[in-house]
Amino acid sequence: GCLINSEEFNYGMETREAYKRGDLSSDLVEEQKKVQEADLLIFQFPLYWFSMPAIMKGWMDRVLVQGFAHEFPNCYDSGLLKNKLALFSFTTGGSKEMYEKGAINGDIRHLLWPMQHGIMHFCGVRVLEPHICFAPEYVSEEKRKGMLIAWAQRLKTLWNEEPINCSPEWYFK
Amino acid sequence: GCLINSEEFNYGMETREAYKRGDLSSDLVEEQKKVQEADLLIFQFPLYWFSMPAIMKGWMDRVLVQGFAHEFPNCYDSGLLKNKLALFSFTTGGSKEMYEKGAINGDIRHLLWPMQHGIMHFCGVRVLEPHICFAPEYVSEEKRKGMLIAWAQRLKTLWNEEPINCSPEWYFK
Repeated sequence: GCLINSEEFNYGMETREAYKRGDLSSDLVEEQKKVQEADLLIFQFPLYWFSMPAIMKGWMDRVLVQGFAHEFPNCYDSGLLKNKLALFSFTTGGSKEMYEKGAINGDIRHLLWPMQHGIMHFCGVRVLEPHICFAPEYVSEEKRKGMLIAWAQRLKTLWNEEPINCSPEWYFK
Repeated sequence: GCLINSEEFNYGMETREAYKRGDLSSDLVEEQKKVQEADLLIFQFPLYWFSMPAIMKGWMDRVLVQGFAHEFPNCYDSGLLKNKLALFSFTTGGSKEMYEKGAINGDIRHLLWPMQHGIMHFCGVRVLEPHICFAPEYVSEEKRKGMLIAWAQRLKTLWNEEPINCSPEWYFK
């Protein structure tokens, strides 16, 4: 649609206004509908450069529009997606030992801060414990099968889980 | 080019082999040439969701190929891009006060960990102090001009700066 202010283009404001007018691209509207209807968002991805792959970051950047997911002062505990849960389930290249405190990559919780707190918590979404499969590429076929079984097992009782306390203490204690 | 192993597709291995054969897409080859020739990489971006915008993350994901930027055990201090410097220069939506320890967004250094340590340091690149312009959208025209002057000033003496100590202490002290 038309810009609200084409002289001083402001991406955040323009996407918020387009959202309100129902003028966002149809792929975004579809994704937002899925989010709206979901009680739990599971993000499954391979960890890329201490974060999510760019294509998934693009989903966050484009879908979680102001007015839909947050609207100051409705952020963090009063974010517009409150009452929803999220879970980051991902695979890594490195082993568990490489992602521990004092190890070469540092505590894996450090890299969860921007994703879990900066994105999900900011939108009011409470976060369940992440589900991490370390280095599936380098373990035996048997261990890989074990990982799948453990994930299937966890899914069965997911609704009984309590969200983490998504504050600096959880990440940097 | 052709895949090395089309039965068990391994993205990291395939990109490494394509790099060695000179078979990467021409846009990647061009970007890698720029990196190779640079002594200092300055990344200028608006902070998006506690990270870089997806399109810039895509640059990282695609350009910093194994064999070019790192090759185990050549990572971190012995990464293949050692002897280069990087500087993250970015704008934020929130004010400085919102990115301090104990504030709503937490210490801004926390979100620099995946980008500065997880990407740059991993490739052997040493990192200069980030250059952060807080909330340019919400300050006066005069303050915005001041930000540009301060940046121009810093650029003049950039080569005299010492890299940060890119270890957990810098980020989570």
